[in-house]
Amino acid sequence: MKSLFPILDWAPAYSKNTALNDLVAALIVTIMLVPQSLAYAMLAGLPAYVGLYASILPLVAYAVFGTSRVLAVGPVAVASLMTAAAVGEVAAQGTASYLEASIVLAFLSGLVLLGMSVLRLGFLANFLSHPVVSGFITASGILIAASQLKHVLGIAAAGDSLPEIVIQLFAGLGQVNLYTAIIGVGAIIFLFWVRKRLKPLLLRAGLRPRLAEILAKAGPVAAIAVSILAVLAFGLDQQGVKIVGEIPGGLPPFALPSFNLDLWWQLLPSAVLISLVGFVESISVAQTLAAKRRQRIVANQELVGLGTANIASALSGGYPVTGGFARSVVNYDAGAETPMAGVFTALGILCATLFLTPLFRLLPQAVLAATIIVAVLSLVDLGAIRRIWNYSKTDFAAMAVTIATVLLVGVEAGITAGMSLSLLLFLWRTSRPHMAIVGQMPGTQHYRNVSRHDVICEPSVLTIRVDESLYFANARYLEDSIYAHVAARPALKHVVLMCPAVNLIDASALESLEAISHRLDSAGVGFHLSEVKGPVMDALKRSDFFHHFKGRVFLSQYEASQALAPAQP
Amino acid sequence: MKSLFPILDWAPAYSKNTALNDLVAALIVTIMLVPQSLAYAMLAGLPAYVGLYASILPLVAYAVFGTSRVLAVGPVAVASLMTAAAVGEVAAQGTASYLEASIVLAFLSGLVLLGMSVLRLGFLANFLSHPVVSGFITASGILIAASQLKHVLGIAAAGDSLPEIVIQLFAGLGQVNLYTAIIGVGAIIFLFWVRKRLKPLLLRAGLRPRLAEILAKAGPVAAIAVSILAVLAFGLDQQGVKIVGEIPGGLPPFALPSFNLDLWWQLLPSAVLISLVGFVESISVAQTLAAKRRQRIVANQELVGLGTANIASALSGGYPVTGGFARSVVNYDAGAETPMAGVFTALGILCATLFLTPLFRLLPQAVLAATIIVAVLSLVDLGAIRRIWNYSKTDFAAMAVTIATVLLVGVEAGITAGMSLSLLLFLWRTSRPHMAIVGQMPGTQHYRNVSRHDVICEPSVLTIRVDESLYFANARYLEDSIYAHVAARPALKHVVLMCPAVNLIDASALESLEAISHRLDSAGVGFHLSEVKGPVMDALKRSDFFHHFKGRVFLSQYEASQALAPAQP
Repeated sequence: MKSLFPILDWAPAYSKNTALNDLVAALIVTIMLVPQSLAYAMLAGLPAYVGLYASILPLVAYAVFGTSRVLAVGPVAVASLMTAAAVGEVAAQGTASYLEASIVLAFLSGLVLLGMSVLRLGFLANFLSHPVVSGFITASGILIAASQLKHVLGIAAAGDSLPEIVIQLFAGLGQVNLYTAIIGVGAIIFLFWVRKRLKPLLLRAGLRPRLAEILAKAGPVAAIAVSILAVLAFGLDQQGVKIVGEIPGGLPPFALPSFNLDLWWQLLPSAVLISLVGFVESISVAQTLAAKRRQRIVANQELVGLGTANIASALSGGYPVTGGFARSVVNYDAGAETPMAGVFTALGILCATLFLTPLFRLLPQAVLAATIIVAVLSLVDLGAIRRIWNYSKTDFAAMAVTIATVLLVGVEAGITAGMSLSLLLFLWRTSRPHMAIVGQMPGTQHYRNVSRHDVICEPSVLTIRVDESLYFANARYLEDSIYAHVAARPALKHVVLMCPAVNLIDASALESLEAISHRLDSAGVGFHLSEVKGPVMDALKRSDFFHHFKGRVFLSQYEASQALAPAQP
Repeated sequence: MKSLFPILDWAPAYSKNTALNDLVAALIVTIMLVPQSLAYAMLAGLPAYVGLYASILPLVAYAVFGTSRVLAVGPVAVASLMTAAAVGEVAAQGTASYLEASIVLAFLSGLVLLGMSVLRLGFLANFLSHPVVSGFITASGILIAASQLKHVLGIAAAGDSLPEIVIQLFAGLGQVNLYTAIIGVGAIIFLFWVRKRLKPLLLRAGLRPRLAEILAKAGPVAAIAVSILAVLAFGLDQQGVKIVGEIPGGLPPFALPSFNLDLWWQLLPSAVLISLVGFVESISVAQTLAAKRRQRIVANQELVGLGTANIASALSGGYPVTGGFARSVVNYDAGAETPMAGVFTALGILCATLFLTPLFRLLPQAVLAATIIVAVLSLVDLGAIRRIWNYSKTDFAAMAVTIATVLLVGVEAGITAGMSLSLLLFLWRTSRPHMAIVGQMPGTQHYRNVSRHDVICEPSVLTIRVDESLYFANARYLEDSIYAHVAARPALKHVVLMCPAVNLIDASALESLEAISHRLDSAGVGFHLSEVKGPVMDALKRSDFFHHFKGRVFLSQYEASQALAPAQP
């Protein structure tokens, strides 16, 4: 029971002191989340209030089923962009069917996550390598920031790729709405200032750290309040400043998502991608924060937590959600101790939905866009690109292709291209394994590469260490390499294939080994194996390999050398 | 020059004696190829004479550009079936556009093969594992044999999958044409008898082996001659026995394939699959035969040979070709020494095309179908299925899926599913690597798995050998496993990660190693590496890993044990 309902781990021992800590954290996170939720919904192409709906029930569902104590679930930047890309394919923004499709997408994502949990497919997320994810998030951040500039400047522009967006922005520069631009650019400058400078300033002014923290996080709320007042005072909505507009009050609507099989089928691939990316993002955050407090995250249960959170979002009129980085870190730093902080946050956002929405009517879209830009630019990590470039050109290639494809084609194409390329590069690398000729390190029983170490070699014995599992993709390469080595050494009596790095010999490689053994045998050269691992040896014994194999299998390379060296004269 | 034109290797030294051997081999192969070419063209859904066209110029092109001395190129069973599947998607059998599309398919296959050669992509063929190829050929053989039964029985039936074919055959049993069935079943029995019994019989009768060989290979020719005479004598074509019909005499038409970009685009995926499968089939045959005479096959040049052969086929009105197994073995056994035997064969088939085609008008389709059935049933290798099952369940899974998909869905789906599944299974396997706790084998410097060998372990030092390259798919698994091992051993002082099987540490795994090092460090446990390979160490040194890493790197595990063991009291 406890593994399916992690809430049972902490709820029975919940104390007043813990509750107080959770409450304070919830207050800070709520102040941060209200503007963010509105903004991310806009990024997803949805009415702003949908962001609030998606920030209530998912938090409660995750509190019951999730294993992280501090993860804050809700709308996030990347998933919002992916939602816009996916739903934009099947419906036009601003229509009822666009909202309907977003809800279906959340429901499908929930089902995909739960399905991955049941089928134990969480490992699929591991196929997204760090460089691909890092490149994807950086490129998404750039794309999101660029896509919001039109709101900041008050011009009409469309376009999904960076070149389109840039061209349209330049083309639209003549129509900049001055009031919008003042509000938007002003908000960006103010928010950056709040983020970088306010907290130290308040601390120096003698405020207590926690209060300084709350005030610093309230920066976006202040920007919202001031801009609403400005619109009200100067009637800016009559001057072309776009505002959020009417928001339905009251509770989120509870309803099952529309059951339209065609729509479900069209959205399924996007739901899979959003689920995978969301899961990777969320579990990375959860594990980083859990490690600091020595808590444990159960990957498979996280799928359940995120899955139910998405289904909860769909049932309450929301769109796809996942664990966000910034909000979880804030939650952690603010002292949240249990997922009850998430429940308190949900209550806070519910109150905002019930009582504050009339105030948001006059909120300028430019301020929401500014909130998004300031938030996503922190996702852009250009240093990672340099680090990856220095470490591995292969990893860099996968990262570069991901970034370029996201910026030039789109988010879904980008993550797919990055994942496929990184898998293909790994396969290609294993299809041409590193092979070394090894000799004995003097005075030891240890054998290393002749071209890197001063080792002792016996001229009549060639020992080749193959540094890869032997499987279909490299079986022929192995054959060719061994034949080439043997052809270059006419005086050879024995070849030893040293297998400490061979973790698998599949049926194709087995045929190659048989061919090698047969061919060397008929050329009068002995073919032997050494340091074959237990599981590999077990498999070989199950086949009829040893019926034909005329060589010997040595437990260690040292034994092989002892046995095969010619007797001293 | 010699590497691009392998013909320069042997043509200058071509002697009269070699010519005689090549001529005899060419005679036998020609006798075998004429009926096969007609039959395989029928299998591809094309007029029978197209098979003859596809057996002339491709042989000459391969003789100039190919590296095998004995490979016989032309229409083969599997490529014919794949052609029927691919072209059937874009045109109806019997129409001019069907023939046109087949010619385009050959041209595209040629371009794909040449492109793979230029881009050095021949390694892609290695991604087709032996079990997948073996399962694919077995299933194709069954499917082809089943699809030809309708011609043998003289009933009208359609269907691409085995269940459809079987159902239609049962449904059509009422309309069996007796004359057709007698000819068809008779031909099958006769051909099987010739294949199994005729040669020994002739040898016992005192014939010279080479003459016996020629006569045995002439079995299908005899069946064709007898059946034509029977049709002529009894006017069977008036009794519902389907015949080949009018064949245009004269030389093959020389023309460029139709340039229709839509059609090219539609056929490209099929051309890629046919090229890959054809290349794998062809190079396997070529290498097997070359090994017997210690000759060398250059994979990349084989792509050029097969590519030009396919383009030659397209330019002379043919369809996709590749190196065939049966005909190459016959060519080899009959004593062919150089590709000149292929040129002689081409001349032989040209003569047949010019002078014998009027005779083929009355040839019953049932006899061609019988030729196909007898030929393809030798492709079916049920023993391989059992062998693979015994050796590896993973390999068997890929094979079984290939067979089932070919039989139930089709050839293209089958080869794609098999290849994808085998790659995914390999990735899955590497994402959960085998890890062993190792100890010292008494009296040696060799370290093996504690659960397989009686080894000496120091309780304060845990040595884990990870049997896989460390990359994104298994980085998190590595972290989890090490944390679990450490958590289970509170008295631990040091963890050594033994890396003889680690051939690569990618950027994702590097981050995991940094996380492990950091976490163990803060838990007061030392984290060290041993037996890190040269190329891996080089990469680590390029990163800033060693700025943070507090442990040691040992050249051998023995050194690690010596250094980390607590001082004796």
